[in-house]
Amino acid sequence: MNERLIIVGGVAAGMSAAAKARRENKQLDIVVYEKSGHVSYGACGLPYFIKGDIPRIEKIIVRTPEQFAKSNIQVNVCHEVLGVDPEQQTVQIRNLENGQEFTDRWDKLILTTGGMAAKPPIPGLDLPGILTLRTVEDALAIWNWIEQKNPKHAVIVGGGYIGLEMAEALAERGLQVDIIEMLPQVMPNMDADLAAYVVAELERQQVGLHLGHKVEAFAGDGQVREVITNAGRFPADMVIFSIGAKPNNALAAAMGLELGPTGAIVVDDHQRTTMANVWAAGDVAQAINRITGKPTYVPLGTTANKQGRVAGTNAAGGEAIFKGIVGTAVVKVFDLHAARTGLSETQAKAEGYDVETTVVTSASQAHFMPEHPPLHVKLVYEKGSQRVLGAQMIGQDGIKRIDVIAAALQAGWTTYDLGELDLAYAPPFSPVWDPILVAANVANK
Amino acid sequence: MNERLIIVGGVAAGMSAAAKARRENKQLDIVVYEKSGHVSYGACGLPYFIKGDIPRIEKIIVRTPEQFAKSNIQVNVCHEVLGVDPEQQTVQIRNLENGQEFTDRWDKLILTTGGMAAKPPIPGLDLPGILTLRTVEDALAIWNWIEQKNPKHAVIVGGGYIGLEMAEALAERGLQVDIIEMLPQVMPNMDADLAAYVVAELERQQVGLHLGHKVEAFAGDGQVREVITNAGRFPADMVIFSIGAKPNNALAAAMGLELGPTGAIVVDDHQRTTMANVWAAGDVAQAINRITGKPTYVPLGTTANKQGRVAGTNAAGGEAIFKGIVGTAVVKVFDLHAARTGLSETQAKAEGYDVETTVVTSASQAHFMPEHPPLHVKLVYEKGSQRVLGAQMIGQDGIKRIDVIAAALQAGWTTYDLGELDLAYAPPFSPVWDPILVAANVANK
Repeated sequence: MNERLIIVGGVAAGMSAAAKARRENKQLDIVVYEKSGHVSYGACGLPYFIKGDIPRIEKIIVRTPEQFAKSNIQVNVCHEVLGVDPEQQTVQIRNLENGQEFTDRWDKLILTTGGMAAKPPIPGLDLPGILTLRTVEDALAIWNWIEQKNPKHAVIVGGGYIGLEMAEALAERGLQVDIIEMLPQVMPNMDADLAAYVVAELERQQVGLHLGHKVEAFAGDGQVREVITNAGRFPADMVIFSIGAKPNNALAAAMGLELGPTGAIVVDDHQRTTMANVWAAGDVAQAINRITGKPTYVPLGTTANKQGRVAGTNAAGGEAIFKGIVGTAVVKVFDLHAARTGLSETQAKAEGYDVETTVVTSASQAHFMPEHPPLHVKLVYEKGSQRVLGAQMIGQDGIKRIDVIAAALQAGWTTYDLGELDLAYAPPFSPVWDPILVAANVANK
Repeated sequence: MNERLIIVGGVAAGMSAAAKARRENKQLDIVVYEKSGHVSYGACGLPYFIKGDIPRIEKIIVRTPEQFAKSNIQVNVCHEVLGVDPEQQTVQIRNLENGQEFTDRWDKLILTTGGMAAKPPIPGLDLPGILTLRTVEDALAIWNWIEQKNPKHAVIVGGGYIGLEMAEALAERGLQVDIIEMLPQVMPNMDADLAAYVVAELERQQVGLHLGHKVEAFAGDGQVREVITNAGRFPADMVIFSIGAKPNNALAAAMGLELGPTGAIVVDDHQRTTMANVWAAGDVAQAINRITGKPTYVPLGTTANKQGRVAGTNAAGGEAIFKGIVGTAVVKVFDLHAARTGLSETQAKAEGYDVETTVVTSASQAHFMPEHPPLHVKLVYEKGSQRVLGAQMIGQDGIKRIDVIAAALQAGWTTYDLGELDLAYAPPFSPVWDPILVAANVANK
């Protein structure tokens, strides 16, 4: 009898694990249980579906269950795993389409149960029209709400990546949008000085932004009609609730896996949990921050895919390691692009580093070209050693430059190393001194 | 009396040297002699001036002589340095506006005489209408030729960066363009498999491309009318002769500085020449290739600026080093963007490496986005060690990704290191697996 690998959760990490396990081991039985109706989709594309950039939601699906079946990977959608028995090495499953429950056995288990929208106990949060965005079903619910209710006024609770992307999407759909954020800034992973450019762009786009507002209740009459904060009341016939993700760790907790301070599953560099034959990957798992060397929780699709491959390889009898992340991310907010990597100034100080920063405004193309929009670059580095700790960039063009700093962080570089870079130059793509070099030169003075 | 620094040549390297020397040393007398009428301009912008993207050529000038004067840097344009006497530490100069000659003395000398268009002895090469492009005056001559002669048919001799940029510029100006290239491919710094995409783009843009053609003569009647190759005759009422640059090394050779095999001045990592108190930088100087550790000649504005700063710092009594280049470059060819860094497959084999390559075609944005043009990535690496030796990319979007490979080369990374990169992802900017990661994953299989 073949060894049997069960994967719980089939989005980014789960299906990467399944595909890699199959390439590693042709004999293994590979079975995936996914609670929702879809697997292997690009969840980061959901705001662009709602915006109308993507004509059919099926387009965000990378591979269907039928395609996985051709690789002899058995995918069961609409199947919720209710519990894991680590002693018996079984999982208890409910088929959500017919309600039947059954047991399946595993030799190897990968938990990729993902993240879930954080939902604190706010009165009225269960009113119809208050929607979250994690899954294809969530996106379809938002789409249908817009089509059927014809809402005029959306309130987005939370000014992180999803909140900002949804502000753009809903404004594009013709809604008046207000963002309510508890913190005094948007994008808490960026420093306030750089995030201020995003604030200006939201104003330019006539999005209402209400910082420092704590939501106290939602009111309505069979659907949401109003958002009540500590500082005001906001009419809303639609709410996107996006204050952040937390690990969907119920199964892991119940089976006794060690969890970190954020509730994410503790894993080693092989994506092994604290239990033999059980791996975890993706938005339910921790990752090592390569700058601090400490575990962190940064749920992103890029990391989920990489961790999934490592978990799949190892569960299938191969050998792979995941060394961690530097925390690179980029987001489009209307006409503005914002990116970050490593530690922000705030984070670096909280970690105890003696921090210096350099902020420059350069151009993303040569100054004499017809278009050369500004690119704001903030470098965060350690005083004395000049070791690069992180960077943030905001502009309208060339934002993927952040990846060069991600490489520098992985290499453990100083700002001097950064200043030596031989970066590509031609007038349509960069000034002769790339903004990264401008920032490094200033930092090196 | 103050020490006196003379800089011969005032474009990228020379004026970077002057500015940095001034910041380093407030007491130094700094004098620049520039043969042409302009200093401190972005020569790489000249094709875009001719194309019509830049309304006035003055826009490509970074700082004027008057602006340098405010920093107490004396800039003399239209002054040709005829010779250097290293014994007496003097230069002999001709004022090209009034013909007067005079002598100036130096304590420190920086040679930044740049590159010059290679011009082999081809019959008819001096016919009016055969133009090169290095300086502001060259660009104005091309502009004026187009305005005054209303040419219909341009032949570009040479399929390198300038030739390709000029093909786009002249096509935009309404000319029928033919490119004649001696080699069997365009862009000799790229491998033929990737350069083939540029060939296809030229065809799509209805540019005639004639590879493997050696120009034997130019014919005309007071101006150029025909280009005669070993394989055909091409009508032309305008020719751009751009077969490459060579170091403008006459002064250096006459004063006895050591030159490398390409004729560029031998310099150490302080930009010192083989003569005390004499530095060289920019298109007249060699640079170390950081991959091979050997001297190389890659005349580009980015390197000129960096070397200029180092020469200026050191000549002014400071301490700076230039560790070399990896050979990064990017060019826009109509709607296609092509970039390279490190060694091409051909170059790596010539250097004796045991070479493996991976070529992938990915997308520059998520596959479900409305625009996700292909990006072709070629990785060149050493068999066994998997050490990255170079990369080439061709696409319509996201070409500055080449800089990540430039960083990897500087760090001495393997393809495994590359595959670990935490690169920025959001659907408008990248697939969840960035094309660099796709290439690394394939290389690591």
